[in-house]
Amino acid sequence: MTTVAVAGAGSWGTTAAVMLSGRSSVGLWVRRSSLAATIASTRRNPTYTGDLDIPIAIAVHDDGQVAFAGAELVILAVPSHGLRLTLRELSPSIGADAIVVSLVKGLEQGSHLRMSQVINQEVPGRRVVVLTGPNLVQEIIAGLPAASVSVSADADAAVVVQRLFASDSMRVYTNGDVIGAEIAGSLKNVVAIAVGMGDGLGVGDNAKAALITRGLAELTRLGVALGASAGTFSGLAGIGDLVATCSSRLSRNRAFGRRLAMGLTPAEVQAETAMVAEGVRTSSAAVALASTVGVEMPIASVVADVIAGRLSATEATDRLMKRAVGDERHGFAG
Amino acid sequence: MTTVAVAGAGSWGTTAAVMLSGRSSVGLWVRRSSLAATIASTRRNPTYTGDLDIPIAIAVHDDGQVAFAGAELVILAVPSHGLRLTLRELSPSIGADAIVVSLVKGLEQGSHLRMSQVINQEVPGRRVVVLTGPNLVQEIIAGLPAASVSVSADADAAVVVQRLFASDSMRVYTNGDVIGAEIAGSLKNVVAIAVGMGDGLGVGDNAKAALITRGLAELTRLGVALGASAGTFSGLAGIGDLVATCSSRLSRNRAFGRRLAMGLTPAEVQAETAMVAEGVRTSSAAVALASTVGVEMPIASVVADVIAGRLSATEATDRLMKRAVGDERHGFAG
Repeated sequence: MTTVAVAGAGSWGTTAAVMLSGRSSVGLWVRRSSLAATIASTRRNPTYTGDLDIPIAIAVHDDGQVAFAGAELVILAVPSHGLRLTLRELSPSIGADAIVVSLVKGLEQGSHLRMSQVINQEVPGRRVVVLTGPNLVQEIIAGLPAASVSVSADADAAVVVQRLFASDSMRVYTNGDVIGAEIAGSLKNVVAIAVGMGDGLGVGDNAKAALITRGLAELTRLGVALGASAGTFSGLAGIGDLVATCSSRLSRNRAFGRRLAMGLTPAEVQAETAMVAEGVRTSSAAVALASTVGVEMPIASVVADVIAGRLSATEATDRLMKRAVGDERHGFAG
Repeated sequence: MTTVAVAGAGSWGTTAAVMLSGRSSVGLWVRRSSLAATIASTRRNPTYTGDLDIPIAIAVHDDGQVAFAGAELVILAVPSHGLRLTLRELSPSIGADAIVVSLVKGLEQGSHLRMSQVINQEVPGRRVVVLTGPNLVQEIIAGLPAASVSVSADADAAVVVQRLFASDSMRVYTNGDVIGAEIAGSLKNVVAIAVGMGDGLGVGDNAKAALITRGLAELTRLGVALGASAGTFSGLAGIGDLVATCSSRLSRNRAFGRRLAMGLTPAEVQAETAMVAEGVRTSSAAVALASTVGVEMPIASVVADVIAGRLSATEATDRLMKRAVGDERHGFAG
């Protein structure tokens, strides 16, 4: 049995721990002692995973040093803005041979780094795997079928993670394009906020499809400029994740956009929920990152303007619709 | 003013006539005399376009020879299975310099020809333009924004059609890849039937996104094998139209799949509605066409099996889900 430690008891972290339990020896690190105690005694994490059973075989720790000591596989499932400090705290406990798996989709504010870059800085020398794809976690909890991609520059590590997560209901593919997977995984959340705003304002399915088309072109352009393979964006990690996030009512980022369309401010929407809509922070980081490689990001720029309070959702949607259906410069019609 | 004749008073034909009226001199050919009389007197076509006003400037004809004589632009908006006979009937009235615009999305049964190929056979020598994209017609009738692509081997003809259809709410791009546009436009209906079945059986948004990803790969493979540009499939005519058709409740083909999932036979679903779900006929033609170029069509094959009564919707969805999330051979994950 592989020894696995999961950092983060949000919905994805808790679910990942449950998915691997039985097949691996799993420890779940829960920073808040009170939550750790609740999970350990009730075997539920109601805020994040509802009535999902958390098997007693999963060891629940509030001490990261204990949770991570000796883990062959370290799964990171914290919000993107907390990743660096989490790693700094845990790095002494992460073995030199451990495989580090990132479930985190976002870009670091300020540095505009992808999550695997943050991992490489804070725990250098470890093999890093990004697990991504159309994986709305509520559906995975419900046992519905899904597909995912295990992405790593180290092909062996990608296969280890593939085998670990694969099940009857979860098929896992491998891919070597970490840049593409992380850019797609981060930016799709930004597009989903834009689609959510359009949805809330009733723009219709034709316009939303045009926006998704343009969104895929925007994130492909950025990825390719940063060294990614365009093919990644045509696969599950690209269009697959983008379509799931933009069309599902379960998507936090789309829901965030819909709430903005109802007239709430970004701060008001954020205050409503314990969950993190990663696209909120990623939008401005993506614009800044894109400017370093000279790529225009019309959708991300508009979303960043809304998050910063410079545009209302209505103004933003007007602008996005005009661009989505009206700007031929980028030739995205093919 | 350009003189335009529209063949077919279904939802798209009627709507196109209304869109162009005022800017062009428009005649609408309605084969059924009784429907022609109703439209001419009530200025409504309730079965297909509800309470959309049909301006009195639109001349309504039940005689095709009269409707088409002298038209500079001929718009074809009949079901794919009726196109060849319609053209045969009208060809003497279609001028040698007329631009022929196809709004028809399908493949001819038996011959497996694309619609522009049928047009070239029946009215040879005319410039042909395909108008396609995410254009759910009920939304266009409602005045919601949309984008479309005017596709022709003749760049001038594509621009004529672009200018004719462009409006504040409809932006029109141009593209020269007729094969790609027609393969994408036909096959997306087949994928939508598959997604509709999955939707009716509650497979979830993760699995539907995986199916759409695989569907895009399937229709790109076929298109490229037939000489299309892969880029067309990443644009509005490809992913744009596919996403709109697969995600909208307004899509006839998705609705067809959902009804199959409720246990109705294909014949029963077909009997329910006056509208044509083009994916029904296209599925088997696509499989036959693909076999001529050695391309596997797992989704189209399963849909064709359901239409032919060889598989139930439940069996089909099981198979599609296993393939969508479980078959690594095609490497569609990127």
